[in-house]
Formats: sequence, structure tokens, C-alpha cells
Amino acid sequence: MRTSELQTPALLVDVHDLEHNLSAMAATLPGRRLRPHVKAHKCTELARRQAAAGHPGFTCATIREVEGMAAAGLGDDLLLANEVLDARRLGAVVAGGARVTVAVDSAETISAAAAGGVREILVDVGVGLPRCGCAPEDAGRLADEARAAGLEVRGVMGYEGHLMLVADEAERARLTAECMARLGRAHADVGGDVVSAGGTGTYAVNHTATEIQAGSYALMDTAYAALGLPFRQALTVLATVVSASPPAAEIQPPWVVADVGLKSLGMDHGNPRVPGGTVWFCSDEHTTYAPDDSGAVKVGDRVRVLPAHVDPTVALHERIHLVDGDEVLETWPVDLRGW
Amino acid sequence: MRTSELQTPALLVDVHDLEHNLSAMAATLPGRRLRPHVKAHKCTELARRQAAAGHPGFTCATIREVEGMAAAGLGDDLLLANEVLDARRLGAVVAGGARVTVAVDSAETISAAAAGGVREILVDVGVGLPRCGCAPEDAGRLADEARAAGLEVRGVMGYEGHLMLVADEAERARLTAECMARLGRAHADVGGDVVSAGGTGTYAVNHTATEIQAGSYALMDTAYAALGLPFRQALTVLATVVSASPPAAEIQPPWVVADVGLKSLGMDHGNPRVPGGTVWFCSDEHTTYAPDDSGAVKVGDRVRVLPAHVDPTVALHERIHLVDGDEVLETWPVDLRGW
Repeated sequence: MRTSELQTPALLVDVHDLEHNLSAMAATLPGRRLRPHVKAHKCTELARRQAAAGHPGFTCATIREVEGMAAAGLGDDLLLANEVLDARRLGAVVAGGARVTVAVDSAETISAAAAGGVREILVDVGVGLPRCGCAPEDAGRLADEARAAGLEVRGVMGYEGHLMLVADEAERARLTAECMARLGRAHADVGGDVVSAGGTGTYAVNHTATEIQAGSYALMDTAYAALGLPFRQALTVLATVVSASPPAAEIQPPWVVADVGLKSLGMDHGNPRVPGGTVWFCSDEHTTYAPDDSGAVKVGDRVRVLPAHVDPTVALHERIHLVDGDEVLETWPVDLRGW
Repeated sequence: MRTSELQTPALLVDVHDLEHNLSAMAATLPGRRLRPHVKAHKCTELARRQAAAGHPGFTCATIREVEGMAAAGLGDDLLLANEVLDARRLGAVVAGGARVTVAVDSAETISAAAAGGVREILVDVGVGLPRCGCAPEDAGRLADEARAAGLEVRGVMGYEGHLMLVADEAERARLTAECMARLGRAHADVGGDVVSAGGTGTYAVNHTATEIQAGSYALMDTAYAALGLPFRQALTVLATVVSASPPAAEIQPPWVVADVGLKSLGMDHGNPRVPGGTVWFCSDEHTTYAPDDSGAVKVGDRVRVLPAHVDPTVALHERIHLVDGDEVLETWPVDLRGW
């Protein structure tokens, strides 16, 4: 099948860029040194490629992601790097034979894990991002509470998310080391083999974590691309130009309209980019943009739009098309959506 | 069922607010004077309530919405108020017995409609928003082209989308009249019974259109709410507080974390609001916010979050729960997602 036969909007992943990204990451963080985060793509077929690249364990952000990964046979070692107050569905996954570890940062989340039938936890430690995570000095006490509740404590996690996009690499490394010193102090009190942290922005400068939870590296983002990381933007949204401005329109320069918009693009990082054009605005199903060469774009043309943020973009689509140029090699369901 | 039993995040629609909105609109624009836009909710069960309120025709933004409405038995008079270059799936809906009218604004979209088996069109006229729509002076010629291609020309449409959020009502009315004068000139050249235009922001001040394409009125948005329209925000996203900041955290004031984020909220209008708190930022599955009274919010609490933009929020969810207070009355699939 050719991309010209696809209904638009459609998610495209370039097979060469994807393979490059998976190989480059596996070379730096082989095997269990990387615990790929599936929230970035929500696709078990893509996760299968990451497993084939040598990474047996995965990071998840939702219960649905854990369930879907286990159902796809990728449940060797799943970490839900998030707090939940009802772990019964996770317990059912454990009962089904998968290994599930869940993050806890409070008495309530420890109780929920134990009550739901989960057997293993990591203590989630706040390392500077104001989000989840206990105080480092409370981690040992929470680990004791978890053990008292019958849970196996595998170690700690802490996400230095506020540092992912620090532009200067040396500064990013220095700040990451500060965060990881906090996590290290907590780990000394907690015990266990696992120190799980990091992401695509810090994967190369976090030398403390035993495993890095990077996800975006596989498909990449325009924001991460600005850091000069050795990964390529593999994901685009294929669109059709459905309209062009009248020749003598009052508003100039000439514009065209592509059939991608707020329903097919994650917008929290702002407007998408269209190569060869300047985006004016997005509507529900439209992106209005001015082509650099207005004569070169016609109604019916196909364009590949670069979303500003990949993760929430993928969550809006039912399927990913793996492409080599204009050839569609495979079509994968985005099967980890929802909660 | 109680809302406390729902997996979060979950879309809630308040039954009283919804019924108020449908009644208030039907009182102003009864019957065919309103052609409700289903893109705002993507839910055939909600559309069924709009049909029961007296509106037999609907506006759609995607082919999938047209297909889904017809499949649900709501295909009396469906307008795809958007340009398409491949109308074969629309032709199949027509062949199945539904009435489908599609917008055209170019020779290419006319050819696509005819080739795809659609029989009826509206000429889409640009009235000031730089998006789809032909020049008013070209509308008559396009209508002739459409008739020559064997298509029935029902009239014109033109969307004054750039005026929806003009704060001053008199100014909004004046600018709308200017836009509609352009549409009226085109209509004089095109002929037909239909002049389709408008939206929730201009429904009460657009006195030219024979039918108004409002959608947001049913569930409402914080942006539209600022206009003082007689509709209530009926939609919230139910969330669970999954974490709270450590008592002696370096960052102050105390914050909590709710399990809604970029994957469950349309973000193009900015951050959501949490009643009784100040939102700091959203991550993929989290909203960090500072409660006004930090002692009043505990881990495990449920909160109702107000998304800044309803339309793209709904597109991220699989179902809508119709609620009366904490009681879940019905659960409706969001069955018009995708393309």
C-alpha cells in the first residue's frame, strides 16, 4: 500500500528513523539499563521492537498500559511509574502471570497496592519536580510500611522531569547529579536493587540510575530535537491539503488548509510545524498555513506535519503506519490508549 | 453506580446542565433553525438528545462522524461542513439511505463529491476567517460547475469562526452582519434554500443564516462561558488525587497531583481549572495544583477538573458518563472519534 491511499489524518513512523533511534539508544543503554516508557507511543507492536532491541522491562503510566503490555506477552517486568489508589486491575494482571511493580509515595498508595494484589513496589522519591514522590527522608519509613504490608520493595524511583529540556548539557548533567544525590540518599534507606529514573533528556548524563525510563527517544519531539540528541524525529502526521485561499483574498500571503488539527495533534507545546510553510493556527480538523512557495502547494497534495509534542498526539490516533518513503510496510494499532 | 466507582480520569456530563443547554438553545433556535455540530461531543447518544429536542439535521466535521450518525439512525440530513478530496465513503453512506450534503470550495472538491457518489452540496464561502471557503464572487461559478457535474446545489455556508469570542456583543453582532453580507451576495449567485453559518458565539446575533451550526453550546467551554451566554459548563473530567507534596517540601505552597493530564485534556486553550485550587502545570497523566485550603484535599479525594477546551478533550475519551450529582445515570460511548 502507498501512503497516498491512506485516509488522512494518519500517523506515519519512518522505519529507518525508528530503527536508528532504537539502535542508538540500545548502544548507549543496553538491555536492562533502559526501561522504555510506553506512554510515548502506546503501541505494543512498537514495544515489541524495543524488546527485540534487548530491553525486557518496560515503564507504563497507566493501568491500561500495564494490562495491554501483559496481554501482548510483554509482561516480563512492567513498572507502573505512577501512583494509583485502586490497584485491583493490576493485581489481576499479576494473577495472570505478569510481573508488575508499582510506584508508591504515601500510606494510601501502599495500602492500595497491597489490597489490590500487587506484590512489588518502588518507593517514588521527589527529586525536585513538584509532582509525585515522597521526601527523601521519608523513603525509608515508607519502605518499612510497605514491607510490613507484605510487599517486596525493589528499590526507588525519582523523575528529574524538570531538567529534561535544560539546553546546556553540562548544566543538565550537574543538576541531574544533584537530583540523583537526593535519590541516592533515599535508596540508602530503602534498599533493593533498582534505582529507576531519567528520560530522553537526561539518558546520557544520569550516571546514578540503574535503569533509565526514556520513552520519547523512539519517535522524538521537536522540543527534544533542539537539544542535539542523537535521535531523529520519526513521527509525522500525514495530511491532505483540502483548501487554498482565493487568488485575490484580502488576507495575504496566500494560505492553504491541511486536514490536521486539534483532534489529531497534541497542542500543549504549541502549533505543529509544516516543512516549507509557516503555520498560522489550528482548528479542530484544520491547520491553516502559508507555504513559502504558494505556487508549489495545490488542493489534494499530501503534506507531512510535525506535531510539537508526540506523546499526546499518538493518544489521539487509532493506528500507526510504519512507512519506508511512500510505502506502508505495516499498520499497528495504538492499543494502549485510555485508562 | 456512583461516580466514586469510576476509573479516573472519566468524562462527566451533568444531566441538568445538559438539559438546560439543549432547552435554552431549542427555545431560541427551534427545529431546523439549529443544525447541531456533533464535533463538539462526538457522541451519537448525545446527538439523539438533540434530535429529541427538535433538531433533525446535524453538522459533521469528519467522514467518520457522518458514517457514525447514519449508522445510529440519525442520518435524515447530515452536512459535512468540511472539504474532502475523497468522498467515496460519503457516497456509500448515501447509498445506504442517509441524506448527506458536503461543502465544496474548489473544482477539486466538486469533482471528488461527484466521483464519490454524493448528490448534494453547499458552496462554502470565505467570510473572513482564513480557512476554507471560496471568494464570494466565485461562488456562482462553482455552483454552476457543481450542477454541470450532476450535483444538487442546496445553497451556501460560511463560518464566521474568527468572531466567536469577540467579547462585546454589539460588536460581535455588527461584524457578523458584515460577514453575512458577503455570504448573502454569494447566495444570490448560487441559489438554493440553505444559508448555513454561525456557532455558539454568534447563534443569537446571526440573523441571516437559515440555520446555525452551533456545537459547543451543549457542553460549553470556559472560553465561551466568559461571553455570558445562557449555557452552563456541563462537562468536567473526574480525577483522583494520587499524591500530595511532602509537608516540608522546598517548593511552597503545598501542592497535590490529580490523575488528569495531557492525554485526557484538550490543551490548545491552556491549562484546565480546578475549582478551589490554582493549576501549576500538566504532564501526560498529571495535573499539579495548589489547593486554596491545602488541608482540605487528601490523597484519594475525587475532584472535577474543568478543561479549557471541551471539543478536543472529548476526542481523548472512550465514553461519557451522564451524572446527576454523584449518581451515574447512563454511560455513552464517544463513538464518532477518528476519521
